[in-house]
Amino acid sequence: MTAASQARRRRKADDLEIVALERGRHISYSACGIPYWIGGVVSSVDDLVVRTPAEFRAGYDIEVRLRHEAVGLDLARREVLVRDHGERRELRFGFDQLVLATGAVPLRPRLPGIGAAGVFGVQTLDDGEAVRAALDGREPVRRVVVVGGGYIGLELAEAFVQRGLEVTVVEAAAAPMASLDPDMGRLVARALESLGITLRCGEPVRAVEVGPDGRVRAVLTTECELPADLVVLGLGVRPNTALAADAGIRVGVTGGIATDAQMRTVSHDGVWAAGDCVETVNRVSLAPTAVALGTHANKQGRVAGINIGGGYATFPGVVGTAVTRVCDLEVARTGLRERDADEAGFRYVTAVVESTTRAGYFPGAEPITVKLVAEKRSGRLLGAQIVGREGAAKRIDVLAATLWNEMTVEEIAGLDLSYAPPFAPVWDPVLIAARKAWDAVEADVAAGER
Amino acid sequence: MTAASQARRRRKADDLEIVALERGRHISYSACGIPYWIGGVVSSVDDLVVRTPAEFRAGYDIEVRLRHEAVGLDLARREVLVRDHGERRELRFGFDQLVLATGAVPLRPRLPGIGAAGVFGVQTLDDGEAVRAALDGREPVRRVVVVGGGYIGLELAEAFVQRGLEVTVVEAAAAPMASLDPDMGRLVARALESLGITLRCGEPVRAVEVGPDGRVRAVLTTECELPADLVVLGLGVRPNTALAADAGIRVGVTGGIATDAQMRTVSHDGVWAAGDCVETVNRVSLAPTAVALGTHANKQGRVAGINIGGGYATFPGVVGTAVTRVCDLEVARTGLRERDADEAGFRYVTAVVESTTRAGYFPGAEPITVKLVAEKRSGRLLGAQIVGREGAAKRIDVLAATLWNEMTVEEIAGLDLSYAPPFAPVWDPVLIAARKAWDAVEADVAAGER
Repeated sequence: MTAASQARRRRKADDLEIVALERGRHISYSACGIPYWIGGVVSSVDDLVVRTPAEFRAGYDIEVRLRHEAVGLDLARREVLVRDHGERRELRFGFDQLVLATGAVPLRPRLPGIGAAGVFGVQTLDDGEAVRAALDGREPVRRVVVVGGGYIGLELAEAFVQRGLEVTVVEAAAAPMASLDPDMGRLVARALESLGITLRCGEPVRAVEVGPDGRVRAVLTTECELPADLVVLGLGVRPNTALAADAGIRVGVTGGIATDAQMRTVSHDGVWAAGDCVETVNRVSLAPTAVALGTHANKQGRVAGINIGGGYATFPGVVGTAVTRVCDLEVARTGLRERDADEAGFRYVTAVVESTTRAGYFPGAEPITVKLVAEKRSGRLLGAQIVGREGAAKRIDVLAATLWNEMTVEEIAGLDLSYAPPFAPVWDPVLIAARKAWDAVEADVAAGER
Repeated sequence: MTAASQARRRRKADDLEIVALERGRHISYSACGIPYWIGGVVSSVDDLVVRTPAEFRAGYDIEVRLRHEAVGLDLARREVLVRDHGERRELRFGFDQLVLATGAVPLRPRLPGIGAAGVFGVQTLDDGEAVRAALDGREPVRRVVVVGGGYIGLELAEAFVQRGLEVTVVEAAAAPMASLDPDMGRLVARALESLGITLRCGEPVRAVEVGPDGRVRAVLTTECELPADLVVLGLGVRPNTALAADAGIRVGVTGGIATDAQMRTVSHDGVWAAGDCVETVNRVSLAPTAVALGTHANKQGRVAGINIGGGYATFPGVVGTAVTRVCDLEVARTGLRERDADEAGFRYVTAVVESTTRAGYFPGAEPITVKLVAEKRSGRLLGAQIVGREGAAKRIDVLAATLWNEMTVEEIAGLDLSYAPPFAPVWDPVLIAARKAWDAVEADVAAGER
């Protein structure tokens, strides 16, 4: 919808007809807000909706077709084959320019019972409504198992805790939040347990046990059986590219649609792609990456829309910044973890510092742990991770900006960051971490390591 | 004290004797915390003290002489002439290396009555104790006038409001917080009034009226007479360089001691200077500047100490970042204001956006206004200002980092900043502001402006 409205800004309705096809019942909403609506922090589903189909029609001359699923592309004829789930019919829509914005689908391992009633992936607002309906339904829900301890899994775990449910998170890896290094993930683990969430790490799920009524009854891990009235999958997502791949549109090594900087598919003229379904590049590792995140999706949609509208814009790639909050625990990362740095061929040192979000003596000073990964010898920052309480996580942005500019940790330690007692210690935790990382680089050089 | 402890880390006591001379009764404390102690937010003065003289002696072999005021330098003989206020005697200390860290002194205009009892500048912990003593003294204090609506003035105004006093801030300029552009300053003005602070802008102070007891009785502005039991000066500070200048040490155009990148005075071998008494360079305007701020002072002291200790470090200058909070109002700036850009010879466009600190639908989403100043044609960011509520101001750091790297607002709009509903809208206010500033750059080019 961002692509559509940007294109409309530059080309009026007499010049460009715009039709948006949506399989589900909602468009233009904050998918990232779904866990907070499930948890009741956000009171109405309408709060998550930015613009309705009626608003797009009235304000932008954009026609939105809900429950219209694109089921095939005929690129030779430049037509989209569409299943209209409402009227139960098939339609064809011709196009000059096509934007693929098919998003991502939750990873769903092939396990016995995974298709049972009561097992949910949570990606779309329709998914969120299904979970809410299950929670409010006739079958009482008391015990929830969350499979996977990543961003979505933990945000959902918080939502269920807030609803007073018994929550267990099952994670195959040794620590939750695998998007962090394990040492930082362990800090998250400790905090989760203090919130009353049961955490079972290093326990892959073997099967979902289904009751005689066809509903989930328990989750079986390699170690135990966890009774469950409701199961949600938080194993991550993959780009939803079946439609594109079937039509021969090129998909990259990460499984996302390959595009150029203007968000044109590399294989087909007049076919664009944006959002969770595409592949982009990580500016640190220089490797292709697929990151499902609303902020990238919006930027990419804007780029596609501006270009379709006759302007010029490019998407510059990502550095891998992400943030989440679980109750009052804040978690953020950017750039490369240790294992990413290994994979990308970098040699590195690390530094971990503990500090406070405000001057230590100032009321509301909360703990913050910052970890930096810096290249050996050059001292170039490769990645950063933050775990802390209120006021900790947003500091990741300054590290993302320094990563973008390929700064060394020595340079970062000299940055003119804001200081006043309600906002930071006299040395901001970011500066302390950079100083310590530079010490590690120097010590490594002095030790004659190669 | 940072210079002293850094030097000690690299050179042990049998190699380097370190003596610290302090005119007052305290060392190694957070001067920035003084308003919060006066206001009672910080309960004990001890909380502001990082290390005591005894700790420096025991832990670092650093001898601290309190109430020892350096009153003269004999650079030919390499001696400091010292007045010991405790024993009422004069001493001489020889040195091989001398670090000048004489700080800043509050600006005190030459006005009738300015020297009266009850008129305070607040720079040192001794000053803070004097204000506390006046508030807790026999003479009841009900009405306070703060002269000057800058950082220190407003922080003190908050402190007095928190103590239940009647507070008037008198500011000669048209808006408070002259470190912002007037349009942003007006946002601060509105917020201050809503906090119950009386604000009188555009009213220079003419005189302080003194009672028969020699104590302040009122402040006379060009417009009115303001009864006052206590007056504090918040007109800013100037580098305290009398000692250095008397000895012929070079002082720059800003009034601060001129140093090289290693914090050596440019005029004398073995004489170093760091902190509020020195001049540094603004990396955006490339002009010399004197900024009194604890974080720079610490960095500079560390640089001097490392170099004296035989290591190598440099101070890279500043971009002019500053932040403050007045009750729940957050104010931050970095880089050049419009008038600074004019002075530096830049032509520019501006953009101001209003957004929220979290996703608009998320509880605790607070207003934030971001203003950017960007160079015409190139689109290079020149400066940024933020006024908002909780969670707004620390975003200045990412703008400081982009300024440091001479990024354009178009590049900034592409940055991979963290997004999740508890932390930001899907477009962080920083990104929205950068986008809008880039639109302004493009519109300006399209209009053929030169």
